[in-house]
Amino acid sequence: MDAPWPQPGTLLSDIVTPMPVIDEARLAANIARVQDYMTGIGRAFRPHIKTHKLPQVAALQVAAGAVGINCQKVTEAEVFAEAGFQDILITYNILGPVRLARLKALNDRVSALAVTADSAAVIAGLAATFSADRPLTVLVECDTSGARCGVQTPETALTLARQIAGAEGLRFGGLMTYPAAGAAAQVETFLSRALALLDEAGLDCPTVSVGGTPDLFLSHEIPSATEHRAGTCVYNDRAMMRAGHAGAGDCAMHVLATVVSRPTEDRAILDAGSKSLTSDLLGFEDFGLIEGYPGARIVTLSEEHGTVDLSGVAGDRPQVGDVVRVVPNHTCVVTNLFDRMVFHDGETVTRVLDVTARGKVW
Amino acid sequence: MDAPWPQPGTLLSDIVTPMPVIDEARLAANIARVQDYMTGIGRAFRPHIKTHKLPQVAALQVAAGAVGINCQKVTEAEVFAEAGFQDILITYNILGPVRLARLKALNDRVSALAVTADSAAVIAGLAATFSADRPLTVLVECDTSGARCGVQTPETALTLARQIAGAEGLRFGGLMTYPAAGAAAQVETFLSRALALLDEAGLDCPTVSVGGTPDLFLSHEIPSATEHRAGTCVYNDRAMMRAGHAGAGDCAMHVLATVVSRPTEDRAILDAGSKSLTSDLLGFEDFGLIEGYPGARIVTLSEEHGTVDLSGVAGDRPQVGDVVRVVPNHTCVVTNLFDRMVFHDGETVTRVLDVTARGKVW
Repeated sequence: MDAPWPQPGTLLSDIVTPMPVIDEARLAANIARVQDYMTGIGRAFRPHIKTHKLPQVAALQVAAGAVGINCQKVTEAEVFAEAGFQDILITYNILGPVRLARLKALNDRVSALAVTADSAAVIAGLAATFSADRPLTVLVECDTSGARCGVQTPETALTLARQIAGAEGLRFGGLMTYPAAGAAAQVETFLSRALALLDEAGLDCPTVSVGGTPDLFLSHEIPSATEHRAGTCVYNDRAMMRAGHAGAGDCAMHVLATVVSRPTEDRAILDAGSKSLTSDLLGFEDFGLIEGYPGARIVTLSEEHGTVDLSGVAGDRPQVGDVVRVVPNHTCVVTNLFDRMVFHDGETVTRVLDVTARGKVW
Repeated sequence: MDAPWPQPGTLLSDIVTPMPVIDEARLAANIARVQDYMTGIGRAFRPHIKTHKLPQVAALQVAAGAVGINCQKVTEAEVFAEAGFQDILITYNILGPVRLARLKALNDRVSALAVTADSAAVIAGLAATFSADRPLTVLVECDTSGARCGVQTPETALTLARQIAGAEGLRFGGLMTYPAAGAAAQVETFLSRALALLDEAGLDCPTVSVGGTPDLFLSHEIPSATEHRAGTCVYNDRAMMRAGHAGAGDCAMHVLATVVSRPTEDRAILDAGSKSLTSDLLGFEDFGLIEGYPGARIVTLSEEHGTVDLSGVAGDRPQVGDVVRVVPNHTCVVTNLFDRMVFHDGETVTRVLDVTARGKVW
């Protein structure tokens, strides 16, 4: 028997918890605000679908002016291709025969598919898979500050760009980076140097793609970039509030949770645990922000229980059966835990969508 | 297009990562070892399904001698009832009209259903739902050390037991606790005192149910208990190794992950991030144990990337394209992230099961 997800028209107060809900008005405002800024600085915007995993929300972003979408996995991109999206950047090193075969099939179906690579080994695998009759666009990932993937120097970026440009089945598409927050100057230094090297080498660099939500509204500080990728900005969350990217009124996702126990005066137990909120702390010391109860802290999570310390709550304390609204630390990971997503306008459910790109493994 | 999950007969080396895999021999050994111990001390064993979320694995546990199963959610219990399980304990405060109606329907289909309660409010909701023609069994949850749900004193346990026994549609089923690790003496003190109070009051207490994997093999130190509930012991994980409950050879779950980048001499990036390993630290400072590379530490996770610090690795370091096996910090939460689970005998896939109780929200 399927869990009875709420239907359109259901009141939020009748929703069985735990359940994330998305505020339609805030969603629309977030999409417009980001696109307006990007349009204003002449930067292409490419939303990362990881936050919503929903073609219907990506369609709103493209309708607002986004140039295409950003996926992380081949199987995610397949979902969006199936839904009609034609401009997809997969910001990942694609390795191995199964993934490469699927990527090749995807490239035959999509008009503008691109991937990234940060090593000769990855480029060699791509080069062996694609051919001149249907080439694949490949961007070089640069580690400009994020300390995750990416080449370490502009010189290595040039080396890999040459390898791509020299492969019959590949087209050099440009540079990609996922920088740390607060590193705009460092990012610009790396990218402008790499662009100069590419120019000297006679290699055209159509795209310079920078990513991340926290510094999204500082994209103008990286003039070398041509496009920006970001996911979290569509819903926002507690981490984005801390980063100064969003206010409480910009958070489109709340997790509804019921107080199922009040074992002591200072302790409440929510039915939202790590299976709803995830254990992502992102530098916080607790697991989300309970609206309406300042001072309440979700101090520990087990899978189906959230333990709340109420000792800092000055006013009324929630009672058994009360439903609270939690702003999660990290919205993207919450999305991945639920098969469907509930949207609402004010206190009424508007639509309930299958999260079709959820749980896509690779 | 569905991600092509491996088929029986596939070699582990051909599995596209990231992917958790379960070792059939270790699974069988874990089930036997726990059941043998419980049988030896005359304790009923009730496996918690949260770890595997699979009727097929629960069936192995019941075949080995388990008395029934433990669920946390009504919708999980429905999956197992559908699969034929008749003895189900839901260790949760069930609240609200929708959940209560589903619980009532479930009670009509299952021969031995029980829930827990730790407040008068929860018992009142149950009492208003069930009737004498098909009563529901209710255990009182006691906070004997775990500091999560549960009544704080044996005296309150008696008060709630009386409330349950006095309700026409309810039967008092006994006591339940989920204690902290290392608290056996404290647990026994609470339970034996509560049992004495119940006895004085003339209330029969058929079941005293204690839970948890870390101290499972110390269950004999709690003689008041009649049954033990545990989930993690079926697969085990890094946290259970630290607790002394399991050795590396008892860990039945590994997450296979591919090295997708080696940006620096000391850094490797895995394709397993928080969407595969989860952010559960459980007191560790890193996110899992990479077999075969002592000194390698998964220091940060983003959703699709695991960043590995190789500076402590004395021997060979993994290269781009290499597949590693990771023992996760916490196996239960990994299970909830994958739609199917892959089992293997040695290096060959034996079966691939739909995780039918995955993502059950409430």
